[in-house]
Amino acid sequence: MRKPKIPDAAIKRLPVYLRVLEQTAEAEIQIISSAELAEKTGFSPEQIRKDLAYFGAFGTRGVGYDVVLLSRRISRILGLHQGVNAALVGAGHLGFALARYSISQHKDVKITAIFDADPAKIGTEIMGVKIHPVDELVRLCQEQDIKIGIVAVPADKAQSTAELLAEGGVEAILNFAPAKLKLPHHVFVQNIDLTIELQSLAYYTSASEED
Amino acid sequence: MRKPKIPDAAIKRLPVYLRVLEQTAEAEIQIISSAELAEKTGFSPEQIRKDLAYFGAFGTRGVGYDVVLLSRRISRILGLHQGVNAALVGAGHLGFALARYSISQHKDVKITAIFDADPAKIGTEIMGVKIHPVDELVRLCQEQDIKIGIVAVPADKAQSTAELLAEGGVEAILNFAPAKLKLPHHVFVQNIDLTIELQSLAYYTSASEED
Repeated sequence: MRKPKIPDAAIKRLPVYLRVLEQTAEAEIQIISSAELAEKTGFSPEQIRKDLAYFGAFGTRGVGYDVVLLSRRISRILGLHQGVNAALVGAGHLGFALARYSISQHKDVKITAIFDADPAKIGTEIMGVKIHPVDELVRLCQEQDIKIGIVAVPADKAQSTAELLAEGGVEAILNFAPAKLKLPHHVFVQNIDLTIELQSLAYYTSASEED
Repeated sequence: MRKPKIPDAAIKRLPVYLRVLEQTAEAEIQIISSAELAEKTGFSPEQIRKDLAYFGAFGTRGVGYDVVLLSRRISRILGLHQGVNAALVGAGHLGFALARYSISQHKDVKITAIFDADPAKIGTEIMGVKIHPVDELVRLCQEQDIKIGIVAVPADKAQSTAELLAEGGVEAILNFAPAKLKLPHHVFVQNIDLTIELQSLAYYTSASEED
């Protein structure tokens, strides 16, 4: 395996570092300290030094990290340096919002195809990206070398959708459907479940009556 | 402090257990083993036993957990037993999707007020919940005893929105804006940032060229 053993939690922090580094580079600042990264990301300087040490990015003590070099390093680690194509399945309200948002925001992860089961939506576009019928999913994912799938379909369609994405060569799935996906181990699944987010938030309010 | 020291990661798993327990109760099954919970949630039996032990929910060895008792216990831990009111700020595409989804799905965390800056939207409704101007936010949050805020506004409005929510008595915020919120320590913030989710997913694809 070519992957370094970086914990999932650290991987989730890398894009946050990347955003701050890119903003810093735009301001033509060449060196950033872990304290400054901490201030701008909200993570502790210790956490940051530990995360960056996973892939051998040691700053110069008392000076800091080279902004451009570190930013390039993180881009490569994440695989963003060459751009990654993504497919969105489900152009309902959530899918529409996700497509609009991510097509406008992302340069490095790009939604290049959208799929929906509703015949009325087929052939229409969201931000210039065309909506295709689901039976073209496997072929188009292969043709467009799509590696990331975004599942925004109803819960009862999530498993079959995810299987089609895997068949089309997708290696990582962002699943917004409240359903547990069962896929081959080489397909990474990240779930975002709004019910669970809201229910777990309640714990941090005074509604939680733990005694 | 009345809160037990349960790690955030375990708190995020509790609603997943709760969902399975409620489905199990509906099927009129009274006892569930950690192995069955593992099968249905995707977490390991060891993880499950450890999580449930945090709040003293020990199953009977070789038998399992009482479905109704455990479900009630988790509801109380999360503060869901009495219902929690939430406010959504930002009724754009994402906000609209979130409101539709969560008003239809949630019984225990309920969006009771929606706010937007666009005068054209004020007075209209999403799933029966009225959209109010932002200058009514603090008052309505106080009046409706709203404890959870959902921030779905543009990044440059996120901080001021969050401050208003905190002023209105909100104790936990789900932030969809790509901005780092600075709030008093008693306000818990959970960020969901689509850019970061997609960028970190790329790591798990063959686009990542770590050598």
